[in-house]
Amino acid sequence: MAVTQLSDAERRLWLRLYRSENVGPIAFRQLLQRYGTAQAALDALPDLANRGGKRGFRAFAEADAAREIDILGKLGARLIAACEPDYPGLLREAEDAPALIAAIGHAHIWSKPSVAIVGARNASFNGLRFAEDLARDLGDAGLCVVSGLARGIDTGAHKGALATGTVAVMAGGVDVCYPPENKGLYDRIAQAGALISELPPGISPQARHFPRRNRIVAGMTLGTIVVEAALRSGSLITARLAGEYGREVFAVPGSPLDPRAKGTNDLIRSGATLIETAKDVLDVVLRRSLAEPSNGREESPVKNSNIMEKDTEAARAAVLERLGPVPTDVDEIVRECQLSAPAILAALLELELAGQLERYPGNKVAKRA
Amino acid sequence: MAVTQLSDAERRLWLRLYRSENVGPIAFRQLLQRYGTAQAALDALPDLANRGGKRGFRAFAEADAAREIDILGKLGARLIAACEPDYPGLLREAEDAPALIAAIGHAHIWSKPSVAIVGARNASFNGLRFAEDLARDLGDAGLCVVSGLARGIDTGAHKGALATGTVAVMAGGVDVCYPPENKGLYDRIAQAGALISELPPGISPQARHFPRRNRIVAGMTLGTIVVEAALRSGSLITARLAGEYGREVFAVPGSPLDPRAKGTNDLIRSGATLIETAKDVLDVVLRRSLAEPSNGREESPVKNSNIMEKDTEAARAAVLERLGPVPTDVDEIVRECQLSAPAILAALLELELAGQLERYPGNKVAKRA
Repeated sequence: MAVTQLSDAERRLWLRLYRSENVGPIAFRQLLQRYGTAQAALDALPDLANRGGKRGFRAFAEADAAREIDILGKLGARLIAACEPDYPGLLREAEDAPALIAAIGHAHIWSKPSVAIVGARNASFNGLRFAEDLARDLGDAGLCVVSGLARGIDTGAHKGALATGTVAVMAGGVDVCYPPENKGLYDRIAQAGALISELPPGISPQARHFPRRNRIVAGMTLGTIVVEAALRSGSLITARLAGEYGREVFAVPGSPLDPRAKGTNDLIRSGATLIETAKDVLDVVLRRSLAEPSNGREESPVKNSNIMEKDTEAARAAVLERLGPVPTDVDEIVRECQLSAPAILAALLELELAGQLERYPGNKVAKRA
Repeated sequence: MAVTQLSDAERRLWLRLYRSENVGPIAFRQLLQRYGTAQAALDALPDLANRGGKRGFRAFAEADAAREIDILGKLGARLIAACEPDYPGLLREAEDAPALIAAIGHAHIWSKPSVAIVGARNASFNGLRFAEDLARDLGDAGLCVVSGLARGIDTGAHKGALATGTVAVMAGGVDVCYPPENKGLYDRIAQAGALISELPPGISPQARHFPRRNRIVAGMTLGTIVVEAALRSGSLITARLAGEYGREVFAVPGSPLDPRAKGTNDLIRSGATLIETAKDVLDVVLRRSLAEPSNGREESPVKNSNIMEKDTEAARAAVLERLGPVPTDVDEIVRECQLSAPAILAALLELELAGQLERYPGNKVAKRA
């Protein structure tokens, strides 16, 4: 994605497109790539959804977009599009990066090499202190510390890095402090660091929002550090996403007798880097930070002009016939259908816009129940 | 090394050769291979040492060997040579395996798949209990547990496996219980398990004996498990040797705030397998136990008849000129000297017997100070 500053009008069109029904981050990118501008994509939406099997599709209204931007302005928040220079550079490279984020505070802070520190909400006293000390040491070494403002480890991480730079990625709207008892910390981060969210302001976080928040935490950082996590903990999702994005995964070990170490020990067994000190993290992350390319990732070449309606019709039928509720690799679908990749991708986009299909990380899709 | 039962007379000759001055385990193997029998090697010793630069070399006296065997008999101990069927099979494959071990107790016990459990002498209460439980679980699963009868983790490991089978490798003579407070455990292992040593009876352990004992612990087992170890702990030597022998290395993780976990966390970072339960060990060890070949390792073909005295003379000079006090790979010496490998190996053997050269694990040698 080419990095360019948008006009306010263009940014509003981006927001309309991103907030339109069934337009997820991946569909957004494909639409933008196929139609060149958000306006052209908005114009094409009803027809695409219609082809996917949905009648009467209506894009997100201009007035609603204007109202959201107005509310954000009153909150002191900025809307930053994925193509804009202030957008977190590493996040832009994630395939399912939000098309837009709302940010309160210092949006320049994540231009430093960033790491995520996440972990158990019911952290031990030692774990909490460890997270805070680690965040302070990493901050002192020049890193920005990203976390999710949750209870426990997240709270420790933000506190430790308040003086040097920390970003809280909110699970709900950027103005909704969750958990409520972290309001004091929320305010201090707004002053000294940054708060971001891809959701509209006013939205209270629900269960399904947390994994989506976690992907932003993993996606905007060079690596994710897990400090204390039981098995099947949300932090392990963040770690898995970091791995899928090709980022570093770090875990703090613990005694087998400590249930809060089950998840981190398991991560280490699965290949995460065992860390005990900030230096262990810095050794890996700063080397990586120097090696990381600053330009965006390659986009797959899907040109509108190459796709004929009869091709996508055949592709839609083939995809619908084969696709079930189990997430399937898009590459595998292309292979199995023996149709051109652009036709399949176009068909998937249409089905997605029509609400028939769901995207999953790692370039996978499933039929909606 | 071909597996064969020795006569009492042959075993006494093995003991004489092994107890002769400057004859370490590697020299012993080379001598036996070159001269075919212990008697022939004993006959050749003075001349070889003389060529290496030492006058008046005397082999270990027959009467002294007879006396040692007599004492062992009175202690209820057996002497087992590396070529004999009762010798631990995996230990036989280690390049620096003792030519003979003295054993008290049930010498068949190590024919089960064996693992070592070692660790900190100043173990925590949790570490101690963990070692005991782990040993019990591994014993119940059919494994023999090997350790060093030291305070702390070793003690816990032996206790846990008393009912199922445990071997204590002594740092001094097989009859010398160290530390003294483990006399009760020593007696119970003598009854229910086995005690072994490569040193003559009556020898009190000294600092230099511990790493040599540790190589036996690592050498006779499929893998070494380290439960709690500070940095620069003796258990880490056992783990390193296990790695050098190509065996598994397991380590129990711990909190970065626990100094007793520094060594084990460090091992994990260096590639050791993180374990939390007996199952984690069994998954690896039993698979390996099935894959492990039962026959001995290949010996390098060094034939006496091929080596001319003038070749070894040139080789001795070349080796002495180049070798310093830093351990150097024998293969590198062969490459650098540009002389035949058999001549170099013969020269190294002569220099070793003459006390001019010291062997190190991993096929390395250094000049003696």
